[in-house]
Amino acid sequence: MPVGTRGTVKSLTPVHLNGLNAQIILGNTYHLYLRPGTEIIQKAGGIHKFVGWNKPMLTDSGGFQVMSLKGLRKITPEGVRFQSHIDGSYHMFTPERVIEIQNQIGADIIMSFDECPPFPATKKYVSESLKTTLDWAKRGKNAHKRDDQALFGIVQGGIYENLREESAKKIIEMDFPGYSIGGLAVGENKRDMFNITNFLNKILPQENPRYLMGVGTPSDILKNIANGIDMFDCVMPTRNARKGTVFTSKGRLIIKSARYKEDFSPLDPDCECYTCRNFSRAYIRHLLSVNEILGMTLCSIHSLHFYLNLVKRARQEILNDNYENFLNDNCEILDSRIQ
Amino acid sequence: MPVGTRGTVKSLTPVHLNGLNAQIILGNTYHLYLRPGTEIIQKAGGIHKFVGWNKPMLTDSGGFQVMSLKGLRKITPEGVRFQSHIDGSYHMFTPERVIEIQNQIGADIIMSFDECPPFPATKKYVSESLKTTLDWAKRGKNAHKRDDQALFGIVQGGIYENLREESAKKIIEMDFPGYSIGGLAVGENKRDMFNITNFLNKILPQENPRYLMGVGTPSDILKNIANGIDMFDCVMPTRNARKGTVFTSKGRLIIKSARYKEDFSPLDPDCECYTCRNFSRAYIRHLLSVNEILGMTLCSIHSLHFYLNLVKRARQEILNDNYENFLNDNCEILDSRIQ
Repeated sequence: MPVGTRGTVKSLTPVHLNGLNAQIILGNTYHLYLRPGTEIIQKAGGIHKFVGWNKPMLTDSGGFQVMSLKGLRKITPEGVRFQSHIDGSYHMFTPERVIEIQNQIGADIIMSFDECPPFPATKKYVSESLKTTLDWAKRGKNAHKRDDQALFGIVQGGIYENLREESAKKIIEMDFPGYSIGGLAVGENKRDMFNITNFLNKILPQENPRYLMGVGTPSDILKNIANGIDMFDCVMPTRNARKGTVFTSKGRLIIKSARYKEDFSPLDPDCECYTCRNFSRAYIRHLLSVNEILGMTLCSIHSLHFYLNLVKRARQEILNDNYENFLNDNCEILDSRIQ
Repeated sequence: MPVGTRGTVKSLTPVHLNGLNAQIILGNTYHLYLRPGTEIIQKAGGIHKFVGWNKPMLTDSGGFQVMSLKGLRKITPEGVRFQSHIDGSYHMFTPERVIEIQNQIGADIIMSFDECPPFPATKKYVSESLKTTLDWAKRGKNAHKRDDQALFGIVQGGIYENLREESAKKIIEMDFPGYSIGGLAVGENKRDMFNITNFLNKILPQENPRYLMGVGTPSDILKNIANGIDMFDCVMPTRNARKGTVFTSKGRLIIKSARYKEDFSPLDPDCECYTCRNFSRAYIRHLLSVNEILGMTLCSIHSLHFYLNLVKRARQEILNDNYENFLNDNCEILDSRIQ
């Protein structure tokens, strides 16, 4: 899922997103709640109408953003009291309130409010936190009012297998249409991340979608698909693109490097995106060097195309019963840097 | 002509420019010469290929930019020695060199190198400067090497009718395919600008296009069309758009105003551009309030559509023999601010 934090996938119009065949866009509950504010989105007729996107959307729970507000938030069993990172104003997120906000925003898939433990965190902390998240999942489920929105439960438990197991089993008992895995890609070792998704693969029900939140690099995605993950979101393709690093079939390309000054080939000769069909490395390098917005737009289009194409390819390889070969052939090169 | 200073109309992809039916884009010789540099554009196969625009393009002479480099340039009969505003490096623009640069950049319409007097300037200064510009026009014409590029002569002479007359007559004698009017919209009274274009209307040949450089507001354009001007360029629609002021059929609209917070109507209810067909004032206000690029893009699309539609309408009203009524009915409202 391309990430549209504040109601826009940065630097792109829906024309380009549609051209990429993007199927679902993520919005951040925390950011949308603060600006423009839930009420305005509701008055607009919901998030799809407000942002001009008539395909699926997903909102996250705000748990991760609130966790990141260190020193500006206080967690209690009731919920989280926090200060806005923008103006310092005080707000309260309870599991009921977060569902109400997401009901008003109106995305197709919404998330239970969770307490996302930071990394590192002691097993004791994560274990206590888990109880809170489970209680909040139940309260959120009871508060959920719209049957046209799929509410996902979130599995927490840090890097601890037995806590993940406890979390998953209790969340599955509550019977959600989909399950998210939170609290990974927050600073832990990659081995620990893959270990947990592999571990949960045996526990989470096959018939419900599994969503790994906030992941990741191309190889992170391929490896986690092997561990049964169905959905991902990450700012990486677009954020890196705006800073001039794009993902290609040969690895990461740092387009601002002087070596591309007179390179009139496309970012990725194997790519068929709008950017690669029409523009050269030299032109894109020029645009980024002089801080022209179009440089960010063209790189974002390319990297989103690359990501969306990668998962499309992955689906096909699974159907062809060839996923393991595909994974082994590609992981290393995709995360390398083009030298 | 939408302005694409450094090889891009800021914040837009060619997809949107084509959607606007833009026919010709301007690039700035001074900026392109410095970055990415003429050589790179030439190696790319020319400016059209470099920027991915296969319709006409025009480059200016650099005269205006060099004039603006106060304290960083020295004008002699030979040309202008100046320092780059970016890194202070020294460069020399002669009329021959400026034509060579434009031959290499490869736009369809190019400009003679002119000395653009600042405003205010004494009649004596403007008169001397004019002699330089005439000499440079002749030298540039002799240096021009490509018959697939139309080289325009530039009329200077400040706000002084007799100097404009002298300039125009001598430039016309040199026989250019088109004539530009420079040195207006540089700080003089609007009355003086209209007086000069009206005055030149009687002198410039009817069969050659007349291009008023760097103008202007919607009413400036309509009034100058009445004075026989055929071509305009201005950063106003796009620059103002990026700062949140758009032009509409009811006047200028300052979209960041709090009153549009919950206004779900389009920027201009009478407009059929991509932005007005798909997005609300409330959404665009939100985007600009949180500094999202898409806000700049959507406002730029709207204002360019407004400008291009305005001149399209003007052409039709001329054909209908109704231009004077059209002018009188629209000028005041177009430049007003929506309260």
